[in-house]
Amino acid sequence: MSDKPILHGVSPSPFVRKVRVALAEKGIAYHQVPVMPFAASEEFLAMSPLRKIPVYQEGDFTLPDSSAILAYLERVQPKPPLYPADARQFARALWYEEYADTKLVELIGAIFFNRVVAKIIGQAPDEAAIAKGLAGLPAAFDYLERELGDREMLAGPHFSVADIAVSSMLVNLAHAGETVDPNRWPGFAAYIARNHARPSFKQTIEEEKTQLPAV
Amino acid sequence: MSDKPILHGVSPSPFVRKVRVALAEKGIAYHQVPVMPFAASEEFLAMSPLRKIPVYQEGDFTLPDSSAILAYLERVQPKPPLYPADARQFARALWYEEYADTKLVELIGAIFFNRVVAKIIGQAPDEAAIAKGLAGLPAAFDYLERELGDREMLAGPHFSVADIAVSSMLVNLAHAGETVDPNRWPGFAAYIARNHARPSFKQTIEEEKTQLPAV
Repeated sequence: MSDKPILHGVSPSPFVRKVRVALAEKGIAYHQVPVMPFAASEEFLAMSPLRKIPVYQEGDFTLPDSSAILAYLERVQPKPPLYPADARQFARALWYEEYADTKLVELIGAIFFNRVVAKIIGQAPDEAAIAKGLAGLPAAFDYLERELGDREMLAGPHFSVADIAVSSMLVNLAHAGETVDPNRWPGFAAYIARNHARPSFKQTIEEEKTQLPAV
Repeated sequence: MSDKPILHGVSPSPFVRKVRVALAEKGIAYHQVPVMPFAASEEFLAMSPLRKIPVYQEGDFTLPDSSAILAYLERVQPKPPLYPADARQFARALWYEEYADTKLVELIGAIFFNRVVAKIIGQAPDEAAIAKGLAGLPAAFDYLERELGDREMLAGPHFSVADIAVSSMLVNLAHAGETVDPNRWPGFAAYIARNHARPSFKQTIEEEKTQLPAV
């Protein structure tokens, strides 16, 4: 047993992926325990009372919630920074992270669950839920295209938690067979393609593809 | 028109209260615009695409989401600190904030809405929703009693965002006529009473009582 930190959670979760991308960007080595939340043990529930993944563990210290984990990683390994130095850009980065972790996951989660997870667990897809998720995406993409403007990153000059959170949700959309139309959202589509081509994202995306059924 | 920051949102919102308490603790003067989210203007929606309160504004700079706003206030006015200095306590504070803002609001929001808001808007209360919220509280209080242990504050030696978020949700429970049983949860009940007696909480609680119907 080494003293590497442990990340609990399966890789295709957008929240687990956020942490894996941050760990890769910061060059932190870790063990991963592929916990599925609905098959979680009592031991896992003691760490994560909301039965959610991921949980980050260093010995007796356990921490649920991807946003809290990313903030913690920034404190223990500040380089490279994943939070903007400027106070306003920093705050906007947190807001975009929250937008991804609530609104985007609501829309994309419904599509991903019913197209991909349903296939794995042998459940009939809820086509109405898929349609509702798809119907909500254009307004979200309009918003992100507008916020991005002509910038490379969402908040400040560097790749940040904002970009990790938004781009992570878009990986699940890609797994579910949907992409961002580059004719309708040219800035946002190019931004997502750029982020998914970063080594930190590319590595986990390739690995996840081997674990998921084709759609 | 002064150059004070503007806080958009009505005071009985647990998320608006989080920001008001932080502003009071840090001694930051502000204007408040009592926006009700469901009667929000187009101008408000441009600042808050999820139609949520609060929004914090300094001229052209606008910021939705109470957690992002608290993190921003810490950057622009670091004293007194509302985030623990220690990395692990800091991260746990963010987790407790998330727990309050998701799990506690789910349970307490249902009770507050159907006992208090329903009365204001002349809607019949959903008694099943109230019962479901009440049924979920003991497990949440057990968790918080256990996490608190024999400490004064949830995360680290000082009053922090963890205490603000948890105690803010408990104000809505009190408005809805429910309190924490001190016989069953002695530590947590005393903790909530202590926090609600702080000037930052006491001032907003007294003001809110004049705005809400008796239950």
